[in-house]
Amino acid sequence: MTGNMKFTPILLALGVAVLSAAAAPAPPSMNDILAASPHGDWRHIEAANMLVMQLPAGRVVIELAPTFAPKVIANIKILVHAHYFDGAAIVRSQDNYVVQWARSDRHALGAAQNTVVPEFDRAISPDIGFTAISDPDSYAPQTGFSSGFPAARDPAEGRTWLTHCYGMVGVGRDMGADTGNGSELYAVTGQSPRHLDRNVTLIGRVVEGIELLSVLPRGTSALGFYDKPSQRVPISSIQLAGDMPAAKQPNFEALRTDSATFRALIQERRTRPDPWFKHSPGHINVCNIPLPVRPVAMAK
Amino acid sequence: MTGNMKFTPILLALGVAVLSAAAAPAPPSMNDILAASPHGDWRHIEAANMLVMQLPAGRVVIELAPTFAPKVIANIKILVHAHYFDGAAIVRSQDNYVVQWARSDRHALGAAQNTVVPEFDRAISPDIGFTAISDPDSYAPQTGFSSGFPAARDPAEGRTWLTHCYGMVGVGRDMGADTGNGSELYAVTGQSPRHLDRNVTLIGRVVEGIELLSVLPRGTSALGFYDKPSQRVPISSIQLAGDMPAAKQPNFEALRTDSATFRALIQERRTRPDPWFKHSPGHINVCNIPLPVRPVAMAK
Repeated sequence: MTGNMKFTPILLALGVAVLSAAAAPAPPSMNDILAASPHGDWRHIEAANMLVMQLPAGRVVIELAPTFAPKVIANIKILVHAHYFDGAAIVRSQDNYVVQWARSDRHALGAAQNTVVPEFDRAISPDIGFTAISDPDSYAPQTGFSSGFPAARDPAEGRTWLTHCYGMVGVGRDMGADTGNGSELYAVTGQSPRHLDRNVTLIGRVVEGIELLSVLPRGTSALGFYDKPSQRVPISSIQLAGDMPAAKQPNFEALRTDSATFRALIQERRTRPDPWFKHSPGHINVCNIPLPVRPVAMAK
Repeated sequence: MTGNMKFTPILLALGVAVLSAAAAPAPPSMNDILAASPHGDWRHIEAANMLVMQLPAGRVVIELAPTFAPKVIANIKILVHAHYFDGAAIVRSQDNYVVQWARSDRHALGAAQNTVVPEFDRAISPDIGFTAISDPDSYAPQTGFSSGFPAARDPAEGRTWLTHCYGMVGVGRDMGADTGNGSELYAVTGQSPRHLDRNVTLIGRVVEGIELLSVLPRGTSALGFYDKPSQRVPISSIQLAGDMPAAKQPNFEALRTDSATFRALIQERRTRPDPWFKHSPGHINVCNIPLPVRPVAMAK
């Protein structure tokens, strides 16, 4: 093993088992757990709930969370249908924080609202499932997953909200809470900025292409805005997947966060039975749990 | 304000006050707190404790943490003095995780040790200061800062360790705990992978140039390794700052984490008195607290 270390360091894998053939039968890894999952533990991501953003480097797909932000998402769909974002650009990339996109001209909002009632949090309701995780969280009394998204709850207040984990997408706003109308969006590309929870409306998360956003050069103006218009990354279009020709629609399924497979995955991530680990963490944070998504093999 | 929102979205600032001239006197911002800090709340980062890595895009500076990893750091200094890393490369960039560098040839370790006693954690000792933060943490009984670095403690066990926050630098290893000899290093470029705490030796953190690492294209092989040698990012050298000509040495000072200024900064980040915030988080996580570093204006 140390020979491997010395001579072929490229084989080293942080936190991933390099099991020797002589080892005892290994406990199931995350990949084993996913491979053994019944089909019913997966859900098809509806085309009506996906945004597809076209960048020069490829496609970024966002799953929307209408359970948490129905009004803002409705406004975004009006903007998208009016091709508001075709010709927008990534205007900001701040290291360890967010990438943000918007139009830079005075483009009219058309039929969309200029202000929208903020959806920073919502009432806990029996029809919203919640897979709670038992570990403490720095920011919220309770954390877990609802409808496939990382979420938090304050049972005493009776409120629930989406959490700012890596890849989550939110709505930029000005000082007024109602100014987040969806014409300017951001994706989290660093350590979870949980202080933004309940301060902006989160509308979904990136399910494909986050690495096209996270590698964008950091802007050198304040807050990571690009200095020069030439540095901005053009967005040729943002479409609703359901409006695209069937053959071009992204076709994904996501692991249900209320499934036994997902609970097993959380436990594996919490305990790390993999023998590479010398110290079992024994704990997990809501923003450190993967939310598996896979392409649907067959055409619809 | 909504006019600004509509017509000049580029001015929007997530989480940063856009104070109007008519507003009441604002509570001190983080920048105000830093601007008012006495000189004694800063410490010069010793040249003997900085590594300088030269990439095609520029310089990455790492402050070492000998309080926590004296043996591994001693081994790294032997490697650096033998120019071990001159001709190494960034071989891995895994999205939302780490960037890793190593030599890809069978370069001899020279006078450095092939295995080193792991320094995953150490005994709590009165000579190690600890500025505790009161908020709960998912992974550790107690978190805070020691000697300028994010750290955690388990008072019951009497142990303390550095935490895997964004920009922290650690030592890749194979299955054996002692195989992390410092010839392969990584920097955290995503959500804090705290499950690695107490499983690898952390040796410091990036104090300049993290954005040169975080934007590197993600590798498409397993674990984010680059597919082809041509994709690797060459490292022309890693030197100890103290070995460089004085005029070329990085010259920084860091805010003391045992200072009143730092405690005020933590409280500002915890409460966010800035009127942009509609909901005061009231809490903070050890990995969401900035560790300010500034250039020293005068030559030594």
